[in-house]
Amino acid sequence: MVAASLRLPSLTSLLFPATTRYPSALRRTVFLRNRAASSGTTASPETKSDDVPRLRSDQAVTPRSQDFNAWYLDVIASAELADYGPVRGTMVIRPYGYAIWEAIQDYLNVKFKETGHSNMYFPQFIPYSFIEKEASHVEGFSPELALVTVGGGNELEEKLVVRPTSETIVNHMFTQWIHSYRDLPLMINQWANVTRWEMRTKPFIRTLEFLWQEGHTAHATPEEAENEAKQMIEIYTRFAFEQTAIPVITGRKSKLETFAGADTTYTIEAMMGDRKALQAGTSHNLGQNFSRAFGTQFQDENGERQHVWQTSWAVSTRFVGGIIMTHGDDTGLMLPPKIAPIQVVIVPIWKKDSEKTEVLSAASSVKEVLKTAGIRVKLDDTTERTAGWKFNFWEMKGVPIRIEIGPRDVSNSSVVVSRRDIPGKAGKVFGISMEPSTLVAYVKEKLDEIQLSLLEKAISFRDSNIVDVYSYDELKAAISSGKWARGPWSASDSDEQRVKEETGATIRCFPFEQTIGTKTCLMTGNPAEEVAIFARSY
Amino acid sequence: MVAASLRLPSLTSLLFPATTRYPSALRRTVFLRNRAASSGTTASPETKSDDVPRLRSDQAVTPRSQDFNAWYLDVIASAELADYGPVRGTMVIRPYGYAIWEAIQDYLNVKFKETGHSNMYFPQFIPYSFIEKEASHVEGFSPELALVTVGGGNELEEKLVVRPTSETIVNHMFTQWIHSYRDLPLMINQWANVTRWEMRTKPFIRTLEFLWQEGHTAHATPEEAENEAKQMIEIYTRFAFEQTAIPVITGRKSKLETFAGADTTYTIEAMMGDRKALQAGTSHNLGQNFSRAFGTQFQDENGERQHVWQTSWAVSTRFVGGIIMTHGDDTGLMLPPKIAPIQVVIVPIWKKDSEKTEVLSAASSVKEVLKTAGIRVKLDDTTERTAGWKFNFWEMKGVPIRIEIGPRDVSNSSVVVSRRDIPGKAGKVFGISMEPSTLVAYVKEKLDEIQLSLLEKAISFRDSNIVDVYSYDELKAAISSGKWARGPWSASDSDEQRVKEETGATIRCFPFEQTIGTKTCLMTGNPAEEVAIFARSY
Repeated sequence: MVAASLRLPSLTSLLFPATTRYPSALRRTVFLRNRAASSGTTASPETKSDDVPRLRSDQAVTPRSQDFNAWYLDVIASAELADYGPVRGTMVIRPYGYAIWEAIQDYLNVKFKETGHSNMYFPQFIPYSFIEKEASHVEGFSPELALVTVGGGNELEEKLVVRPTSETIVNHMFTQWIHSYRDLPLMINQWANVTRWEMRTKPFIRTLEFLWQEGHTAHATPEEAENEAKQMIEIYTRFAFEQTAIPVITGRKSKLETFAGADTTYTIEAMMGDRKALQAGTSHNLGQNFSRAFGTQFQDENGERQHVWQTSWAVSTRFVGGIIMTHGDDTGLMLPPKIAPIQVVIVPIWKKDSEKTEVLSAASSVKEVLKTAGIRVKLDDTTERTAGWKFNFWEMKGVPIRIEIGPRDVSNSSVVVSRRDIPGKAGKVFGISMEPSTLVAYVKEKLDEIQLSLLEKAISFRDSNIVDVYSYDELKAAISSGKWARGPWSASDSDEQRVKEETGATIRCFPFEQTIGTKTCLMTGNPAEEVAIFARSY
Repeated sequence: MVAASLRLPSLTSLLFPATTRYPSALRRTVFLRNRAASSGTTASPETKSDDVPRLRSDQAVTPRSQDFNAWYLDVIASAELADYGPVRGTMVIRPYGYAIWEAIQDYLNVKFKETGHSNMYFPQFIPYSFIEKEASHVEGFSPELALVTVGGGNELEEKLVVRPTSETIVNHMFTQWIHSYRDLPLMINQWANVTRWEMRTKPFIRTLEFLWQEGHTAHATPEEAENEAKQMIEIYTRFAFEQTAIPVITGRKSKLETFAGADTTYTIEAMMGDRKALQAGTSHNLGQNFSRAFGTQFQDENGERQHVWQTSWAVSTRFVGGIIMTHGDDTGLMLPPKIAPIQVVIVPIWKKDSEKTEVLSAASSVKEVLKTAGIRVKLDDTTERTAGWKFNFWEMKGVPIRIEIGPRDVSNSSVVVSRRDIPGKAGKVFGISMEPSTLVAYVKEKLDEIQLSLLEKAISFRDSNIVDVYSYDELKAAISSGKWARGPWSASDSDEQRVKEETGATIRCFPFEQTIGTKTCLMTGNPAEEVAIFARSY
């Protein structure tokens, strides 16, 4: 077997030879240090030094099992998902990472439109006075603001906030568009960049500037707003499960963790590979908080003026980080087929020059067949790397399926198909016919299987790492073992604060899926209506 | 004829009755005045007062023939394309306007990818020192910068520029990604917001913040860069002609009008309805200007280090303004079918309640038929407005085709089809069969005809307003009559500056399409190699 012989251990040394395609990483480390010394934008003492990544793309990624954080940063560098911008905490999203974001956009954009939302665009500069109008909003956001104070060479009389979120400017505009109940519901969305001056940053997960969508709606009744907020968290939940194979837990935030300005925040919480929680999307029932602050009113059917009921909801480029940290393994990235920029990579293999033409010709035909069938396929026909190097490279990049074609395969009119999610020989099937309809059907079936398999694996990992707890001691034991704790909770905000201080865990949510039966608060012993999920988080 | 009887002159009064859906406009004017008094962001004395629009969406739009600027602002308000943001010079792009931008994005995104470009995203905050690195770049952009000086509550040691364009940060990153000739060409694009602190603003045409795509490429040879710059202006040209029906004139900018930091700028210049020129897209051959400033180098095949050759190219939301000002008429907007958010509006007509059910049912069927055929169709089945009001409303919104269905049409299994671009009875055809394949074929044919007809009309308008001139006197006469002047030019920059000061016209471009034969410079009488086009512009 040509392919098998190429997968000898010795090939590991070929993976990232001395002259690598990606030598920039080491220079970057130097660069980052230089900037840290020279630039005011890195000057804050709160900046954590562990945020400067151990970029090491001149060699294989750090095994995930050895150092999760180093692995994460290595994967981002080696798979060319993102790079650091020149300003501390900013991120350049590179084509391979951006393509994942585009897949997220494509799916959600359709769902938003199907549910009656229109895209539009609001300016990113918000007068500072707007932020101050909603009391809890200003309290939540003012420490994180970037301010424009100079424009066109002149000091501005009123400083401008670079949008951290748009509820204020949205309400300012809504007051001008909403007059009567006939103007409701008003349901819009925008794809935009937002800025939050975070001190501790991590690519995709928390950056000074990030990309997101933010939906904003206004309704005539509280019921409609509540239904909308729940509908959107449901759309996010389905998206997470079906597209990204992330089995999020959906629920309601505690009062302490609710969005600054919302009555209720719904959330999808994902368990990363290190068992920390990632808040991957939120949907807020804003009640009348912003409409009262901004005077967003309408005349109802009886001619009475009322404040509108509102929601907002968002998913960001953070989701890309969630995908990396849910599915990746020691080898690198592992992408769910539905959002993989490349679903199938074809690696042609030849030893003698006499074999090259027929192998490349067969590989090209296979590529065209798959492409025509709507499969995202790449033919790696470069001659500068060995097939073994390519195997390792595309595995590190997380491509779900590899097709190998060698001279013997060409003679047999067949190909070798390997699954990224099943390492080694077990994931490899020989003799799949090149006949177009057979091959397309086979590849599509395998893509579906991989998608499902990634989800099942993630569900199993999630469920084996959630512990039901009935006392604070049990909660502490669960958290200190790195797991999530699920237990009945009806205690106070200060008790919740105490858990955070003593264990590092917060209430991630009161899950929609609740256990049946009488419950007793794990902290106070008082009756409890719900279980909460506690975890350390990003 | 039901439809005809509804188009009596008296209906004009129904178009925007006293209680309108869009009463916000008048209040906005008040608002804008209030802000002008209270906000520092409007404080500059250079702000022109004619930029505050005469918003009057409580009635029909000002006829274009009467006051082009008032018409433009009225159309934007009445058709709900955009609104003013709270900060002077900023714009909210409303769903109907944003949908046009999405159509632009959808087309160009495919073309960019087909020609080998990948989307990615660069941070919008650029260290101030970057802008200073390329001498002519800083000179061109420094008067227009917005600066972030405070982040997270602290003064920043180095102020940050809010991206006015990304050549500097792109080069900073390219130095880390480009090492060898194997890394070239590097061809990327981003869809992003950009900020330029303009003093005189106009919705879509010139705003403090706007949306655009900016392509950036790096090549191993000057020939490749030149080919790329020309390829992209060619893509813009085809887009303008084929999608937006705008017959742009493509050419090279004069030295004075070249982008700050480019060797050569190619441009597409469009003639608006008032005969002013609009620069609708540009593609720059940057030579080695930025690569030398930033040290963007590669090792060539002989092992020598060389600076890369670069291009950048952009199209922005300004294009939406160009579409409005090219095709609109006294009645309002007129959208080319290919980029119209709604290509067909169906207006059901009934007098008696007994007719309502069958008319609405037929209208729904027609809608589904067209939708299934991939036509963007809207059924206006609201009962709050008369059919006549709807006719006028959707004409003002520029929808290319209106389908009317009344009780008699239902009996005949036919519909009435009206073209937006042919006013009155001449554009109206009765008795088009409802039979799905017939109707779809008919509508598609009409959409194509309208698309072509708009282009032909615009070409004819353009050509009848360009005057060939052979002396400065002829040039002055042409410009003062409001037309464009085309004449041989080989004079100096200071002569060009003199033309600008004395006539208000600038060289829009040296068009790619040149007249044959010996040429004598209209200004100096010296030999000239090319004709230039002069015009007043936005």
